[in-house]
Amino acid sequence: MTRSQQVSYSLREISERFGGEIIGDPDIRVREVATLENAGPGAIAFLANPRYREQLSGTRATAVILGVAMRDATSLPRLVCVDPYACFAHVSGLLNPARQAQPGNHPSAVIHASAVVAEDAEVEALAVIGGNTKIGARSLIGAGCVIGGNVSIGEDVRLYPNVTIYDGCVIGDRVILHSGAVIGADGFGIAMSEGRWLKVPQIGRVVIGDDVEVGANTTIDRGAIDDTVIEEGVKLDNLIQIAHNVRIGAHTAIAACAGVAGSARIGRYCRIGGASGIAGHVTIPDHVEISTHTLITKSIKQSGTYSGAYPFEANREWRRNAAQLRHLDDLADRLRALEQQLKQPKRSES
Amino acid sequence: MTRSQQVSYSLREISERFGGEIIGDPDIRVREVATLENAGPGAIAFLANPRYREQLSGTRATAVILGVAMRDATSLPRLVCVDPYACFAHVSGLLNPARQAQPGNHPSAVIHASAVVAEDAEVEALAVIGGNTKIGARSLIGAGCVIGGNVSIGEDVRLYPNVTIYDGCVIGDRVILHSGAVIGADGFGIAMSEGRWLKVPQIGRVVIGDDVEVGANTTIDRGAIDDTVIEEGVKLDNLIQIAHNVRIGAHTAIAACAGVAGSARIGRYCRIGGASGIAGHVTIPDHVEISTHTLITKSIKQSGTYSGAYPFEANREWRRNAAQLRHLDDLADRLRALEQQLKQPKRSES
Amino acid sequence: MTRSQQVSYSLREISERFGGEIIGDPDIRVREVATLENAGPGAIAFLANPRYREQLSGTRATAVILGVAMRDATSLPRLVCVDPYACFAHVSGLLNPARQAQPGNHPSAVIHASAVVAEDAEVEALAVIGGNTKIGARSLIGAGCVIGGNVSIGEDVRLYPNVTIYDGCVIGDRVILHSGAVIGADGFGIAMSEGRWLKVPQIGRVVIGDDVEVGANTTIDRGAIDDTVIEEGVKLDNLIQIAHNVRIGAHTAIAACAGVAGSARIGRYCRIGGASGIAGHVTIPDHVEISTHTLITKSIKQSGTYSGAYPFEANREWRRNAAQLRHLDDLADRLRALEQQLKQPKRSES
Repeated sequence: MTRSQQVSYSLREISERFGGEIIGDPDIRVREVATLENAGPGAIAFLANPRYREQLSGTRATAVILGVAMRDATSLPRLVCVDPYACFAHVSGLLNPARQAQPGNHPSAVIHASAVVAEDAEVEALAVIGGNTKIGARSLIGAGCVIGGNVSIGEDVRLYPNVTIYDGCVIGDRVILHSGAVIGADGFGIAMSEGRWLKVPQIGRVVIGDDVEVGANTTIDRGAIDDTVIEEGVKLDNLIQIAHNVRIGAHTAIAACAGVAGSARIGRYCRIGGASGIAGHVTIPDHVEISTHTLITKSIKQSGTYSGAYPFEANREWRRNAAQLRHLDDLADRLRALEQQLKQPKRSES
Repeated sequence: MTRSQQVSYSLREISERFGGEIIGDPDIRVREVATLENAGPGAIAFLANPRYREQLSGTRATAVILGVAMRDATSLPRLVCVDPYACFAHVSGLLNPARQAQPGNHPSAVIHASAVVAEDAEVEALAVIGGNTKIGARSLIGAGCVIGGNVSIGEDVRLYPNVTIYDGCVIGDRVILHSGAVIGADGFGIAMSEGRWLKVPQIGRVVIGDDVEVGANTTIDRGAIDDTVIEEGVKLDNLIQIAHNVRIGAHTAIAACAGVAGSARIGRYCRIGGASGIAGHVTIPDHVEISTHTLITKSIKQSGTYSGAYPFEANREWRRNAAQLRHLDDLADRLRALEQQLKQPKRSES
Repeated sequence: MTRSQQVSYSLREISERFGGEIIGDPDIRVREVATLENAGPGAIAFLANPRYREQLSGTRATAVILGVAMRDATSLPRLVCVDPYACFAHVSGLLNPARQAQPGNHPSAVIHASAVVAEDAEVEALAVIGGNTKIGARSLIGAGCVIGGNVSIGEDVRLYPNVTIYDGCVIGDRVILHSGAVIGADGFGIAMSEGRWLKVPQIGRVVIGDDVEVGANTTIDRGAIDDTVIEEGVKLDNLIQIAHNVRIGAHTAIAACAGVAGSARIGRYCRIGGASGIAGHVTIPDHVEISTHTLITKSIKQSGTYSGAYPFEANREWRRNAAQLRHLDDLADRLRALEQQLKQPKRSES
């Protein structure tokens, strides 16, 4: 645990803020969150995944957050919620408030004379801020960040150390960018001409909406001509590639190591699995779920879940089966031939 | 649009520089590039992909660049070219010239006394340059870059902020390295000995040829003993891993999230798709195209296109089909048994 | 070659340190390692992979390291070892010692007054070290690194430039972190509530054991509540994602571009291939090998090798076979129907 947690709250205070039914002493106080397994006195734990139910009996937590189906699964003081994980998120946010900007700029930061940093914003050591760039109220720019010129950064933004933002990009309010994220690098725009690649200048911007979070070492390229757009509430994990002119709809979440190719358009409230890929110029509607390690090669018409990972096996079985995969079309032909030989009515091959 | 675009050119001037047939008023002037969809007066747009043809009728562009097949698809002033995308790249480069180095070193940069920075080069704020390192004419070293000792950087090079180059690496002329790129980190050389991994010192270099561009957060490891070599004109997108002792032939382009394992040799003019992988010690000849999400596990003999992505489906169909994939070899055996039972001449199983 | 290599050793001295049988003049001296192909006088080369055996005859190396089976494959002075690659690793380490910390902090580094940096540690230019952080003896913090508050860094640690470590993380002795690595960014913890994602504070730490090496631009997220743990001797290549609450057992090695999802537990002495993925909450026992491009979707019970990459083909064949893959379940049904029609006893389908 890395944050000092002095403040405590009673179950009653928590319930008043976030809802939930109290069972047991409403005045019992908690001052930190913990897992059922490692909780100690003063901690509030939660049970959202039934697979951890056994841990309830042995926990030393002072109180627990439970779903309705589990309301009687313990005798500990408890808060019973429709969605215990969301309730836990609220409680943890209350007990672990994010670090606030401490107004002022570290003397080692290099801030262009024409940049406008809000008075109550904070710029940490050795950050660099370019000309005509604006940093909004209460925003916190981490050490070693380099922000180009003509960038607009909203209010209550948190940039962790060593983030890079190229010229002209726009960052909304309450955005969080983790270390190593690169916003606005050139899209991969090249044209072959007489045996050499010509560079196509990438003159669009990256525009990031409010309440977006971008993981460590994730890259979002600027548009070739128009902008790359990340709508409000989008959550991107680490090491994700977002190519030029992509648009990601509001409240979509993408897990680590995924890649979205140029000009793809992803809808709202999608959930994209880790190491998945979205091909260029593809359109994905709202409320689509893409499984881990899946490559989407063409546009999807309907919401739903789409998958395409190769099922793993012990190496010996994989070798045998994968070898046959190279003969699958031949195998289908042979099956069809047998069917015809037997004069059975040929079935649909869908 | 992030660059001020004051200068304008007539279609005649453009045609004189880059070729193409003018249809309409040759003296009409353009000062910026734009998409057909978002162009306004003074903009020149282009049509290379037929799927956007409909946008021609509604565009407010002052002029357009078109392929020969489309020469009569609009009445706007136009430049008709054999390769409209390459023509557009030229025009955009003319209207959006790259930022030039402004000679001088920011006082906050930390430059070793033995480093040699060309007089007309620029070193931005808080960059670090090691001992005996040379920076060539007109090169621009971005803020926060760290360049080790004994590095050689050519002329007209652009390092965006927060690039890292390890000791001893060589960077050619006109190279562009985007933010977060790491050039010359140790290759993954380990030897198991008595239950522990021994580190194998990585003493080769990374040698990058002229006109190479490296995307954001891409990593190119130094050679174990000899060098890792990226030949001239290679274009690497973001988040790519190039392992130790790889050699990539001239003018090969690799899309984002790909990985090339140790000692692989890739030919010239290859195009490697995103999130693809090249296994260690594999050789790939010139003019090979690798599809997205494809793993190349052995050397390729002939130029051509190679693929190996699992086709995605709705999750329910994927579950049914992927489950059968684990029985594919058994299925092939059963089909063969039926064929024999029916006494038909056994067909080749290739 | 980037390190000056003045010191030389005789074969006798080498054999005394690391074992191996000398054949030829034991007093012959070598001062650098080289490949068979590029060795010159004064170099010692090695042959571990039989495919390079032909290079033995043409090498200009002064001496070579060989396996027992190759002991008579050359007349050069040689050191015959059971494991020539491990022997070579030892010799290369002897001839290419790692750069040692030169005690002292560069005046441009920004070190919090409450940080404790060992007297014989070195902090390079423009590094930032937070409050209450401890840097152990002989550790070397590269230029541009940003280390948060309350971080503990052991002895003989090497941080290459531009590494970021978040607050509260723990780094063991002799750890090596390469440039762009991000240790301790927030795990991807979000809960959907009323149409918006709530952020779940990530209050665990990252705890890295002794002798761990982490590649360039690799990210290791802090735990959601408890810690993310990388045990001693683990070796991680570049561009790897380790999610929150993962535990990686001692001496496991993971190749580049792999991703390990939240709460996965990987055993000791595993070898995980490049671009592979481990799903969340999965358990993998000791001594498991995962092939490149393989997704592990459920827990593994037994040690062994597991695979799941799609076999690549020429594009035309892939198209035909991959298309049939979408009908595989139907194909299996049709085969079963034929079998029944022929009244042969139905065989097991698994």
